[in-house]
Amino acid sequence: MLLPELKQRRDKIRVLMAQQGIDAALFTCNTNLIYTYGRVISGYLYLPLNAPARLFVKRPNNIEGEHIFSIRKPEQLPELIQQSELPMPRKLMLEGDELSYTEYSRLAACFPDSEVLPCGTSLIRQARSVKTEMEIEMFRRSGIAHAKAYEQIPSVYTPGMTDRQLSIEIERLMRLEGCLGIFRVFGRSMEIFMGSLLAGDNAAAPSPYDFALGGEGLDPSLPGGVNGTLLQPGQSFMVDLGGNFYGYMGDMSRVFSIGRLPEQAYAAHQTCLEIQAEVTALAKPGAVCEDLYQKAIEIVTKAGFADYFMGTVQKAKFIGHGIGLEINEAPVIAPRIKQELEPGMVFALEPKIVLPTIGPVGIENSWAVTAEGVEKLTLCQEEIIEL
Amino acid sequence: MLLPELKQRRDKIRVLMAQQGIDAALFTCNTNLIYTYGRVISGYLYLPLNAPARLFVKRPNNIEGEHIFSIRKPEQLPELIQQSELPMPRKLMLEGDELSYTEYSRLAACFPDSEVLPCGTSLIRQARSVKTEMEIEMFRRSGIAHAKAYEQIPSVYTPGMTDRQLSIEIERLMRLEGCLGIFRVFGRSMEIFMGSLLAGDNAAAPSPYDFALGGEGLDPSLPGGVNGTLLQPGQSFMVDLGGNFYGYMGDMSRVFSIGRLPEQAYAAHQTCLEIQAEVTALAKPGAVCEDLYQKAIEIVTKAGFADYFMGTVQKAKFIGHGIGLEINEAPVIAPRIKQELEPGMVFALEPKIVLPTIGPVGIENSWAVTAEGVEKLTLCQEEIIEL
Repeated sequence: MLLPELKQRRDKIRVLMAQQGIDAALFTCNTNLIYTYGRVISGYLYLPLNAPARLFVKRPNNIEGEHIFSIRKPEQLPELIQQSELPMPRKLMLEGDELSYTEYSRLAACFPDSEVLPCGTSLIRQARSVKTEMEIEMFRRSGIAHAKAYEQIPSVYTPGMTDRQLSIEIERLMRLEGCLGIFRVFGRSMEIFMGSLLAGDNAAAPSPYDFALGGEGLDPSLPGGVNGTLLQPGQSFMVDLGGNFYGYMGDMSRVFSIGRLPEQAYAAHQTCLEIQAEVTALAKPGAVCEDLYQKAIEIVTKAGFADYFMGTVQKAKFIGHGIGLEINEAPVIAPRIKQELEPGMVFALEPKIVLPTIGPVGIENSWAVTAEGVEKLTLCQEEIIEL
Repeated sequence: MLLPELKQRRDKIRVLMAQQGIDAALFTCNTNLIYTYGRVISGYLYLPLNAPARLFVKRPNNIEGEHIFSIRKPEQLPELIQQSELPMPRKLMLEGDELSYTEYSRLAACFPDSEVLPCGTSLIRQARSVKTEMEIEMFRRSGIAHAKAYEQIPSVYTPGMTDRQLSIEIERLMRLEGCLGIFRVFGRSMEIFMGSLLAGDNAAAPSPYDFALGGEGLDPSLPGGVNGTLLQPGQSFMVDLGGNFYGYMGDMSRVFSIGRLPEQAYAAHQTCLEIQAEVTALAKPGAVCEDLYQKAIEIVTKAGFADYFMGTVQKAKFIGHGIGLEINEAPVIAPRIKQELEPGMVFALEPKIVLPTIGPVGIENSWAVTAEGVEKLTLCQEEIIEL
């Protein structure tokens, strides 16, 4: 990746470090290495406040360059920092929300004379929540590829398919368009394979996670998603696969129906489109997340679908979430979130309604906050597509 | 899952707890919940040494039963433990190698009067390294499905394909045979999408991980695996996808060639088959891991392929690894590992050779240690399959 881009990102982190009197950061988790160095390695990126970053690499063994050093184990860090003519940090931050307790403790013990803080994760996530122009361009390109895959969905559907069979064909379409497959989530607990296709009443099955649509899954070791349901006339299904084509988790959901649905479904779907239109009309720098959420609740309540909004048996407690290298970044569009939108933030907005005996309707797109409003990053037909 | 099976697993953990004077364990990481409760939830399994386990569930919201309680946040744990008429633990173990530093610290703070130890991960991994009969049966079934997918590989190959295109078709075959897709690894750093197909010289590209075969990958955010190489006559490729059909990570690699390969490739492949035969002949309860490794080195050195064994540019430092709910469990078959095999251990043995300009050859199967020797769990043609 181009150095000016990396420098811009590192400097965003440095600004936040300076505010907290932190004079160095050590990053070793994959997403943070992608952000600060442009690729995954096994090793450490050491970011001083007032000097160029150093890279300490375990593997691969073929990376060389200025400020790049080979390392075998973290206990070599102090020696290598000194060799590269940097002072020991007074206040060092580590990735406290991502490193395991034992790995954090081992790294902290390498710096016995430093004050070690666990705020590395929250601080870099704050920096990451406002994207650079290059990052937004990655999202635009992902949106194009994602839409191209979804547009081919009708061509791989055949009557009599189960949700599982169709999902496999859509996964293949995504991969052929360049999807890397890997689905990155912040936090250890949420495990998702590529995303979900949720059909009929399986969409209402509650999952271990804070999702509007859960799904039973195929095995108790991976609850969530398809459960082998036959795709039946009069029912809908929603496709919500992660759009990771260049490292950035684009997010887009579309609804399909087997034949015609009951009229209620179209009314509910229109309500979600209306929520999307109204909320994105308000979304601009300075807009407050909880106000956007309240606008959605207002519209869906008036339309009479509040009981089915964002799930039924178990409801999701948000209508949108920041996206980036992980699917769940800041900001979260949810009640009691006072955060204001800023230019460069990228988020998914996903008003969804789950109708008993019919299935899910609604919409999800990815949006970038601009100077004046928002830019839609996922352009693809938004009506219910009848198969 | 059946209660006697869960009880057997929990009791294996309790035996190890008793040895260390630990009177309770708290598990919340997915693999450990699958092991001790049979499925993924969001919540906690609390395992007292001398009383039945308690389950504290955040989500899904539809789980009920004896000893199952609803929970919103970890700070409720002490109160819920007391409500279920259990004493507070004196010595409590948490999953120190899996929980994040902040999550570990938050949980530990809930038990201010207990001695809190981070050994929960290492101890449950020790228990998990010796499988129950039911777990081995899951591996057997996975092996059958895995082999069925690999047997169809020739039918999805067409000349002129790239490694990426063929990999996508094989992923689809795996999914159609029931592969859950998710690839579970111990440790935060190793990220793999389903596994790898490595062709020609791309197999030698060093990765961030301790793999015999790396691969450049398609994007710097996910180095490893296919890189868009054209599958060419006179070259080989190895398919090594994770066989997770029921939660258990079966492991199997097979080699294919486009047309005929240079004779050296067949000789190298036979060397790997010989290593497999000789090592598995030694593998039985009491066999020491490093001795198995040394046997492999002895054979490959005598055959003249030592320089290409387990990689070239960057070599893997093992020839086999335990498998289970994660791809990297105990034991590791590597130098200086004094661990002895025990009945019920399950491991993958993967002697592989990477030949410059040709590509990878070798074999990988999954094996269960029996009372007298080993049982092969992945039964599928082992010669190089010519396409």
